[in-house]
Amino acid sequence: MEKELNPSMFIGVGGGEIISFGAGQPDLPPPKEIYDVLHNAHNNFRYGLIQGNENLRAALSKQYPGSDKDDFIITNGASEALDLVLRVIGKGGGKVLLHKPYYYSYPPLVRAAGLEPVYTETINGKIDLADFKEKIKDCKAFLINSPSNPTGRIQDVETLKEIERITKEREIILISDEVYKDMIYERENYLLSGPQVVTINSFSKTFAMCGFRVGYLYSNDKSIVKNVIDLKTHTSMNTNTLAQEMAYVATTVPKEYLEKGLKIWKERRDLICKGLKDMGLDFWKPEGAFYVLPKVDNPKKAVLELFEKHKVITYLGDWFGAPGRIRLSYALDKEKIEEGLKRIKEYLGK
Amino acid sequence: MEKELNPSMFIGVGGGEIISFGAGQPDLPPPKEIYDVLHNAHNNFRYGLIQGNENLRAALSKQYPGSDKDDFIITNGASEALDLVLRVIGKGGGKVLLHKPYYYSYPPLVRAAGLEPVYTETINGKIDLADFKEKIKDCKAFLINSPSNPTGRIQDVETLKEIERITKEREIILISDEVYKDMIYERENYLLSGPQVVTINSFSKTFAMCGFRVGYLYSNDKSIVKNVIDLKTHTSMNTNTLAQEMAYVATTVPKEYLEKGLKIWKERRDLICKGLKDMGLDFWKPEGAFYVLPKVDNPKKAVLELFEKHKVITYLGDWFGAPGRIRLSYALDKEKIEEGLKRIKEYLGK
Repeated sequence: MEKELNPSMFIGVGGGEIISFGAGQPDLPPPKEIYDVLHNAHNNFRYGLIQGNENLRAALSKQYPGSDKDDFIITNGASEALDLVLRVIGKGGGKVLLHKPYYYSYPPLVRAAGLEPVYTETINGKIDLADFKEKIKDCKAFLINSPSNPTGRIQDVETLKEIERITKEREIILISDEVYKDMIYERENYLLSGPQVVTINSFSKTFAMCGFRVGYLYSNDKSIVKNVIDLKTHTSMNTNTLAQEMAYVATTVPKEYLEKGLKIWKERRDLICKGLKDMGLDFWKPEGAFYVLPKVDNPKKAVLELFEKHKVITYLGDWFGAPGRIRLSYALDKEKIEEGLKRIKEYLGK
Repeated sequence: MEKELNPSMFIGVGGGEIISFGAGQPDLPPPKEIYDVLHNAHNNFRYGLIQGNENLRAALSKQYPGSDKDDFIITNGASEALDLVLRVIGKGGGKVLLHKPYYYSYPPLVRAAGLEPVYTETINGKIDLADFKEKIKDCKAFLINSPSNPTGRIQDVETLKEIERITKEREIILISDEVYKDMIYERENYLLSGPQVVTINSFSKTFAMCGFRVGYLYSNDKSIVKNVIDLKTHTSMNTNTLAQEMAYVATTVPKEYLEKGLKIWKERRDLICKGLKDMGLDFWKPEGAFYVLPKVDNPKKAVLELFEKHKVITYLGDWFGAPGRIRLSYALDKEKIEEGLKRIKEYLGK
């Protein structure tokens, strides 16, 4: 039974009576403008540039000071961007530092690239700089994710600046997975930058188009960009060209779309935090993204019973290097969050 | 200059005065029905199943006797299917046998998966069973591509049956890249099958939707299927859900669509063969797909000068393990083929 417990059993599952606090995907609608691309499509379906559509890369470069459109590669979601860059830097092996808890795909991706994952523990979800400095010493790269999936925590700007400084000085590759950068409740995003930085991002979360799989990689390191393009030429070729056109339209959407979304996410965050607190559960307050990671007794039993008896999907903390906890994604409307909380309360017998 | 000569410099390039015998993509229109999916799209853009949409897998399983929908995984083109299966079987290393000339992505994909490519030479593009039997002995897998990119040659049914028998007996994985299986001029396709077979296919060529990147993998080996899904969960998640809906519609298109296409491909094959023959070039007659691989003097100079001076894209035989040759894709209308042939004649000074 334990053997069968893994995230892929829940991905794409839902509907009906099920309340899913599982997969991390927005339920809010995507910008309506991106449907126009579909409805007016007369696309010829031919191969596109491996690196990605030029207009999309040009639009992205406006969002990153000092960047050029040729510093970007459009990928099948942030997942592929991460996989490709790890495979490129993986030649000859080495260690990649991850902060715990981590997104569940990180260790398998690091290992699949021939690299070894090593870990720095966090304190209440915040990177412990003393431990970081010790662990980073013999690493080839550091993979940071702020806001974090699964904790929803962001790293302090001072911490980010120090990490930026150390990795630059030691020429350690700093991979920054910023797929939740537009979903921070507490402050503006601090964009990690420098010659050592590889930024990973996606349209999935910001524009609610997860199933369309458009992400990207940005780096000023021309050798990394070239090697990723060369690899992608063989492993998947261009990213779906129509999805790229939709992503381009998403870059032109007024800022209000994001602001409106953020307000809703914050309300939901407050709602779920109150509910969990009322049940007496211990958790770190999410500052971004849409995840919360409470402690529960016997988490494996909790995930299975919540699914089988209460039709509530939650993810096991163990998958994220967070034993003793379960992850809840609150990308659901208020009514569903309330119903889900009610069922969790029933499970807990409170 | 030589350093810069690689396929990615030409992919997605074209238009204007350029005649491209480069990338292998049909110019014929896709089935008109698949546009309806776009024009009526009210897709919610959410994550799909990692393994792929159920209706698409069910439709595919009807095309493969003895298969079940759960034996299929929908991927970002055949490229990703191949990359994933090689990565899965790559654990612990080993050798993969390729027949020469080969599709240019094969050796890099094999190496990127931690495996070593080894080669069996062909005679006039046909597998030499004596050499095959010798080379296969210490291999983990054989990757076959019939009809072949870049030769357009098909393997004899007797040869295919013998390869099927030997690999089954020795429990060697037989990866069959059949993306051109619906484009054979000489006979019906012979579908390699058995517990050792992993079939790779795509909607790109058959239905002219290359840029949409929908391919698939089919295997009766449950462990391979499971491991590929597990890997894809981390490396790219689901394949674009809307592209999968379009692929599903493509499976429902009347057979006439393919028959009509095949007639056109055959006419073009005859046209280009006549043109090349009239110039006195030596080549193997293509029996499927839409490639021809003539011998030329100084192929590097030919590819560069044809592009720079005559605006004709051709691919270097070296990329395919075919020194002394260049590859021409004849996925072009007759007028363009004729114009392209004229320019090649000019280049040759004939």
